[in-house]
Amino acid sequence: MAGSVGRICKGFQRLGLLSKQTQLIPFTRVPVGTVRTIVTLPSFLFPQPRDFSLPNPSWGSEIMRMYEHYESQCEVETEGGQKQKGPWRRLPSYNRLLKYATGGVYLSKMIQSKARLFTRNIRNPGAAFEYVLFVNKEEQKCVCILQAGHLLEGPPGHVHGGAIATMIDTVTGTHATFLSGPVMTANLNINYRRPIPLGSTVLLESSLEKKEGRKTFITCRVTSTDGSKLHTETSALFLSITASHLLGG
Amino acid sequence: MAGSVGRICKGFQRLGLLSKQTQLIPFTRVPVGTVRTIVTLPSFLFPQPRDFSLPNPSWGSEIMRMYEHYESQCEVETEGGQKQKGPWRRLPSYNRLLKYATGGVYLSKMIQSKARLFTRNIRNPGAAFEYVLFVNKEEQKCVCILQAGHLLEGPPGHVHGGAIATMIDTVTGTHATFLSGPVMTANLNINYRRPIPLGSTVLLESSLEKKEGRKTFITCRVTSTDGSKLHTETSALFLSITASHLLGG
Repeated sequence: MAGSVGRICKGFQRLGLLSKQTQLIPFTRVPVGTVRTIVTLPSFLFPQPRDFSLPNPSWGSEIMRMYEHYESQCEVETEGGQKQKGPWRRLPSYNRLLKYATGGVYLSKMIQSKARLFTRNIRNPGAAFEYVLFVNKEEQKCVCILQAGHLLEGPPGHVHGGAIATMIDTVTGTHATFLSGPVMTANLNINYRRPIPLGSTVLLESSLEKKEGRKTFITCRVTSTDGSKLHTETSALFLSITASHLLGG
Repeated sequence: MAGSVGRICKGFQRLGLLSKQTQLIPFTRVPVGTVRTIVTLPSFLFPQPRDFSLPNPSWGSEIMRMYEHYESQCEVETEGGQKQKGPWRRLPSYNRLLKYATGGVYLSKMIQSKARLFTRNIRNPGAAFEYVLFVNKEEQKCVCILQAGHLLEGPPGHVHGGAIATMIDTVTGTHATFLSGPVMTANLNINYRRPIPLGSTVLLESSLEKKEGRKTFITCRVTSTDGSKLHTETSALFLSITASHLLGG
């Protein structure tokens, strides 16, 4: 498959559509902001990607309040009045076009593929998952603020256990990737303590437990935004993967 | 809230819109076929519910082959040429309108609510979860045949771990409800062994491990349809709930 990608790239180069400095790198789950090398493809193939982690009109007051709380800690002011990086950093939304462009091995699928990231597959704002992730490198923590829309129902009036698991996998997986590079989920052990009402905003807090060789152990709690209600507790295990895992699918 | 439901029902009865034999029963996750008592509401409120567990044109040859395999065991022929119930039974799809109609406490939300079951929230056939469940009462087993659509992507070209967890929760939860009545998910412990390619059809096999008081322990394996590839292994715990749990949300 790598050979066919090479041929596609050469084809693009002949057409003057690819930068000569193009470098294809293996890649999974890495959000936009952390990509080091980007294949320069013609702009008509890539409409300006939307950053879904930014507020939209469907966001209610609670997700906005929490967003502003963490956003305000991404840049802080020193005593001298200068601005500098704060402890938290917002992760722009994971962009599938970029993933395919940098993933290289999937380049051939990129143009025709209809595939869409599960957590962003409904484009109607507010209907499903509205969320944003922030990461704290020093504390090795990641938080996600989630507003759960009406299309996520499981028990009457409450969020489906699978939708909660989906966000836990997304947040812990993104966190593990941030800490260890490309990973795959090996285990999710989720204790459901209290159901989440549809429409509510909750906080997912992901913490590094330990790293052992290829293994990254993460814990994650889902709580109400004030921390008073515990909805789920999770331990998760991720395994680092190499380019061969990606190439082999 | 129960009082207000009573008032709503009396209002319907005065209008001649409800059967006098109406009996509201607590209810969660029970598929259409297992409901014992149904509130008779005016037909204009309920367009004929679609049974999503029946084949549609998006179903590929593999899901059709598996469907026909289990469907053929729902009714068998005796030596005398008579037809009788077989070991398996297809579960019609979980219908939200019916849930609200029979749930009673949610009747007031029913008419205006936009909520939709997470696994059926995309109406484009074949785009997301296409699945059907069969249950075997004697063997205390439940199987689900799943065709994973292109909107379920996680790792490039493969199904999102959360989408897999969603189906595991759905199948084991339905199975636990079939065995123990209304339940809530208490724990899902999922080991991911091998990614599932987008577009493929897999088999989820759910088995009762044991029942202890309010607890129902279920195990679930996700494999290729021929059983040769193991994708995930799960142990799940469900807690039986009472009407007060439902009323209290």
